[in-house]
Amino acid sequence: MPRLFDKITIAGVGLIGGSLALAARAKGIVGEVVGFGRTEPNLRLARERGIIDAYSLDARQAASGADLLFLSVPVGSMASVVSSCAPALRADAIISDAGSVKAAVVREVEGVLPEKMSFVGAHPIAGGEQAGAAAARADLFAGSPCIITPGAKSASTAVRKIRDLWEALGMKVVEMDADSHDALLARVSHLPHVLAFALMDAVRGRSEAVAKLAGASFRDLTRIAASPTEVWSDIFVANRSELNVALDEFSVAFEELRGAIASGDHAALRSLIERARQAHAKISR
Amino acid sequence: MPRLFDKITIAGVGLIGGSLALAARAKGIVGEVVGFGRTEPNLRLARERGIIDAYSLDARQAASGADLLFLSVPVGSMASVVSSCAPALRADAIISDAGSVKAAVVREVEGVLPEKMSFVGAHPIAGGEQAGAAAARADLFAGSPCIITPGAKSASTAVRKIRDLWEALGMKVVEMDADSHDALLARVSHLPHVLAFALMDAVRGRSEAVAKLAGASFRDLTRIAASPTEVWSDIFVANRSELNVALDEFSVAFEELRGAIASGDHAALRSLIERARQAHAKISR
Repeated sequence: MPRLFDKITIAGVGLIGGSLALAARAKGIVGEVVGFGRTEPNLRLARERGIIDAYSLDARQAASGADLLFLSVPVGSMASVVSSCAPALRADAIISDAGSVKAAVVREVEGVLPEKMSFVGAHPIAGGEQAGAAAARADLFAGSPCIITPGAKSASTAVRKIRDLWEALGMKVVEMDADSHDALLARVSHLPHVLAFALMDAVRGRSEAVAKLAGASFRDLTRIAASPTEVWSDIFVANRSELNVALDEFSVAFEELRGAIASGDHAALRSLIERARQAHAKISR
Repeated sequence: MPRLFDKITIAGVGLIGGSLALAARAKGIVGEVVGFGRTEPNLRLARERGIIDAYSLDARQAASGADLLFLSVPVGSMASVVSSCAPALRADAIISDAGSVKAAVVREVEGVLPEKMSFVGAHPIAGGEQAGAAAARADLFAGSPCIITPGAKSASTAVRKIRDLWEALGMKVVEMDADSHDALLARVSHLPHVLAFALMDAVRGRSEAVAKLAGASFRDLTRIAASPTEVWSDIFVANRSELNVALDEFSVAFEELRGAIASGDHAALRSLIERARQAHAKISR
């Protein structure tokens, strides 16, 4: 496969950024890979694992001459990382990201984007609750979907290269506008994280019994309650208008079930459970 | 291992009842195994798979001379199955079950239990969202916990035999009273099922996009929304007093997160997420 980028700077060499570097290097589609971050032990580990060639705690130094700046930091920090790195990037560099929220990120990054650069919002839907370079793996993305949200400052050549990048790593790329992405992700990812955090919080006084007796259903449902705090507080705030709507929709369904349970209404419960089961059957592969 | 029961009647030869039969036969701890149920094709499949020796759609015929009646039907049907089977069982037979609710089951079954028989409530915490004899497997129980709730009509020899049965299948048996079981299961199982059903119901208008783009977090959280309707409507109603309290506790945690999201309060969100993460860390193995 031909080389797509000569030098990429990865801001945030964690599960996503580190896995992108590993996978892209394995495919031979990137030249030099430089890490940028706040936590030197994590960057050192990334270099030791062969994820990156070099790193710097200084944004300009890390970004020097790069033709791709890849943002895998919490979404609330992306615009500030772009501001710090941009002066050192190649004048026609592409900036892209892996954030779980798109409209707010696009708005904020476009506000600080130099004239000749492109920003292409992207969201590879892969990952997990683990964090850090230690969790990175080259096969993280293969077979999963990736949403790209081209905007006003996405040159078509830049969109093409970002699409090529994720397709080269085995992802199924889908394009949509940032608002559609945020509405959908509020339902399939952000709301489930709220539920997992709320459930763990609700049972926090019974951790001993829960640890001993919880089965697979509880463990699968709360697995994502181990997700990184800052990543998720940023996502919730950045996507709060869509997430508020999704939380309202969930509340309606939850209160309907709760009412039927409180009144011991078998017929109502059966019909609500059946409706949920049918919705589940439709999304099952 | 010595034989524990000469003839067992399994009411409901599904995932749990069928797996118990397979596992107990593999260990050589039961003699004849007879299935009882409402759905002949399922019973026929169970016999073809070697799960049971014979079956009957008639309760008395299926229960004739058995020294163990094992109930793996929806909890709301257990007392009526006991009423139908009891006249045909051995006079000193033991009756046990695998229901996810204990207090209501114990109360209802004790109300119809013949003088010399014992009822020992049990709940093997294993299984999944699959149903029917087709899903049964001999290794379903190994390594998982099983709660036994001895009551006023559980002779100590009967409790011992039921404990021996589940321990022989590799389960870690814990004894507690029925109310404690129900309080705990309301939190670790019944509430999570309500959440999974409510989440699927809330997104039912977007099934196409969800099917295409949902990641592992959504799929793991909603996996149990495929669980059988009647089993779960019975559980929700039978345990509704404890489940109501658990739903209230969840609501408090959910509304706290929802409020912090609506107001975009980063500090409050970080502290709530951190509290949930710490609770999760405590229950992680």
